[in-house]
Amino acid sequence: MSTHTVQVIAQQSRLAARQLASVPESLRNLALAKMAETLESVKHQVLAVNAQEIIKARDEGQSDAMVKRLTIDDKTFQYMLSRLKKVAQLPDPLNRILAGHTNPAGLRVYKKSVPLGVIGIIYESRPNVTTDAAGVCIKSGNAVILRGGSEALQTNTLLTDAMIEGAVNAGLPQHAIQIIRTPGHEAVGELLKMDDYIDVLIPRGGKGLIQRIAEGTRIPVIKHYDGICHLYIAADANPEQAVALAINSKCQSVQVCNALETLLVDKKCAEQLLPLLNTAFAANNIELRGCEQTQKLLSNIPAATEDDWHTEYLAPILSVKIVDGIQAAIDHINHYGSGHTDGIVTQSLAMARQFEEQVDSASVMINASTRLSGGGDYGLGSVVGISTDKLHVRGPVGPYELTTYKWVAYGDGHLRS
Amino acid sequence: MSTHTVQVIAQQSRLAARQLASVPESLRNLALAKMAETLESVKHQVLAVNAQEIIKARDEGQSDAMVKRLTIDDKTFQYMLSRLKKVAQLPDPLNRILAGHTNPAGLRVYKKSVPLGVIGIIYESRPNVTTDAAGVCIKSGNAVILRGGSEALQTNTLLTDAMIEGAVNAGLPQHAIQIIRTPGHEAVGELLKMDDYIDVLIPRGGKGLIQRIAEGTRIPVIKHYDGICHLYIAADANPEQAVALAINSKCQSVQVCNALETLLVDKKCAEQLLPLLNTAFAANNIELRGCEQTQKLLSNIPAATEDDWHTEYLAPILSVKIVDGIQAAIDHINHYGSGHTDGIVTQSLAMARQFEEQVDSASVMINASTRLSGGGDYGLGSVVGISTDKLHVRGPVGPYELTTYKWVAYGDGHLRS
Repeated sequence: MSTHTVQVIAQQSRLAARQLASVPESLRNLALAKMAETLESVKHQVLAVNAQEIIKARDEGQSDAMVKRLTIDDKTFQYMLSRLKKVAQLPDPLNRILAGHTNPAGLRVYKKSVPLGVIGIIYESRPNVTTDAAGVCIKSGNAVILRGGSEALQTNTLLTDAMIEGAVNAGLPQHAIQIIRTPGHEAVGELLKMDDYIDVLIPRGGKGLIQRIAEGTRIPVIKHYDGICHLYIAADANPEQAVALAINSKCQSVQVCNALETLLVDKKCAEQLLPLLNTAFAANNIELRGCEQTQKLLSNIPAATEDDWHTEYLAPILSVKIVDGIQAAIDHINHYGSGHTDGIVTQSLAMARQFEEQVDSASVMINASTRLSGGGDYGLGSVVGISTDKLHVRGPVGPYELTTYKWVAYGDGHLRS
Repeated sequence: MSTHTVQVIAQQSRLAARQLASVPESLRNLALAKMAETLESVKHQVLAVNAQEIIKARDEGQSDAMVKRLTIDDKTFQYMLSRLKKVAQLPDPLNRILAGHTNPAGLRVYKKSVPLGVIGIIYESRPNVTTDAAGVCIKSGNAVILRGGSEALQTNTLLTDAMIEGAVNAGLPQHAIQIIRTPGHEAVGELLKMDDYIDVLIPRGGKGLIQRIAEGTRIPVIKHYDGICHLYIAADANPEQAVALAINSKCQSVQVCNALETLLVDKKCAEQLLPLLNTAFAANNIELRGCEQTQKLLSNIPAATEDDWHTEYLAPILSVKIVDGIQAAIDHINHYGSGHTDGIVTQSLAMARQFEEQVDSASVMINASTRLSGGGDYGLGSVVGISTDKLHVRGPVGPYELTTYKWVAYGDGHLRS
């Protein structure tokens, strides 16, 4: 793909974004509905093309996990459509008056949410990102440039073309949704240079991908790094609840960013709880690695090294540490954690409050599974990821998080004196 | 300055930030009051040290503008104190519940504003940034690391020591406010590497400084780039108001980021207005540069080149262009502008609305001087600058803009199914 083509796409998106800025809510929601309709009408083609890409991926010796991520079946397809419909039902993230003020001279000033402009999404194989990202961007009045993985290119292109048709039928600009149609790294490299036209990049994938993008561009990047998530079982925790929360946080799905990676157990309840936890984790085929004190209580488990505390396993492995009180737990989390999702199990309001205030993470869970952190349970509808940044957006990235604002001042010849 | 020392400062700030996160509003406001008190008590020392630094700067042949920026007189000093007191009176930017939701299973979720953490401010000579930045950071519960220009080092250090004394007297952590005390570029280089400890950097100064910092660090940077500000005089503008707004926008102060740089005049009123504008600008010693059509009406002025439309003069020069209607004006602004502050003079509500919606700038002024864009007239109290970024903060950067948020979920053993 030539520079020219990526540049043309970026310029077209910029122009589309200018038009989108004044498209009313009703039209954006109509577009989302039409996008779901046109997708529905190409369902069989999509499943057929996806099946071919699955065969190709298998032939090329891709891992089962990768093939699974690539696969769209009937259920996945319906889920993708339902997300588009759901995002249409959310409140309008645009034109909210966020603050306002009349200055002493009578100047009316307000701060109003507006689209960011052009959003580039660079992602790996999951084709559902294609529809999720387009849905969230259109809802928030942004133009979107999609760039999926090569292994799903045909599937993603077909999905995008259907969405473009639906969006244009509803009256949106032709280039509100675009996809880069040629494989290869070169096109991504060109995309990273388009800082004159693209307002933000959102990479979805492994840490390596995100780092490469963040360090290779002047375009602001919303980053989705590790989830080294912790659960601290306080001395007063209800034992049954503690075990259930630890198991759910770790085992409900191990390959996701809000899965538990390190369990912190208060030394006052460790003797009672660790054997119960050991049995429960063994029943779920989770390998435990423990600190020295944990090993004293559970003689069969290997030692956790310094590296373990820094590791996002994304695998059936859990590191376990005995800590001396809540402050030690908070200090461990703030030192080793990644600021993604961290929880406490306690019956004490004071400890819950201390944990809430002092743990410096995007999500703080009180007596709730770390797996509940995310757009769905937070009521955001569809999201394009979970940000580990602190600036602009922290945690789930939904339509509202893809807005910025402008200040508007209405005067009557007001001058500065 | 050794790496070690900058690193120690950054680590101390990080620890202070953890403590500051749970300091209540009343204590932060008390600290701001005590900071103003201790500053008042060292006023004579500050003015004396500042006087020495002014002599040194003159001896070294620094420009008058630079010496002026460096100077603290009695009035400036009182203004600095008044800003600290004013920021104390603002509503608390922390612990605001920004959104909330109970999920179908009864999980209570809310999104709460919290401090960013550690903020590094790198600035050039104005010593008032020292007190303004510290005030805004303490108000918002952030630890601050100050790094002013070498030419004001003694003044800045004295101001900072007084503020630290006040803050500590009120009960804030010792390292809530810090300043890097040694001159030279090396220390700034070390500061840029402290991405493990510093959450955001705010450079205040010329474009070169900001670019060097943004490109030399992994720490997120809030950028304050150019203000290539426009005023569009629509065909229906009240002529007197139009001239007054153009003059005030350009002449009230020429060296500031929200001063007018390009005037767009609708071709329908150009013949009537340009002679009036020409006379008024001449009386204010402003040099006009015009497009071809402008030159036809004002034969005495030189041509504006393509470069002129891209230029932030920060000087008594103004480029003037005749445009064919509001859409041409908006297109010119979105193409050549820097997204800082752009205004329209019109009597038409429809045109005001179109301008508000389509101009992609941090501040859009309707019948108001571009010079009114800023924290003061927007009711934000003290600010540390005007962001030209779109992410996180756009326009004035006050205490609220130096917060992020966390999601907090209160459950009762809630699991993911």
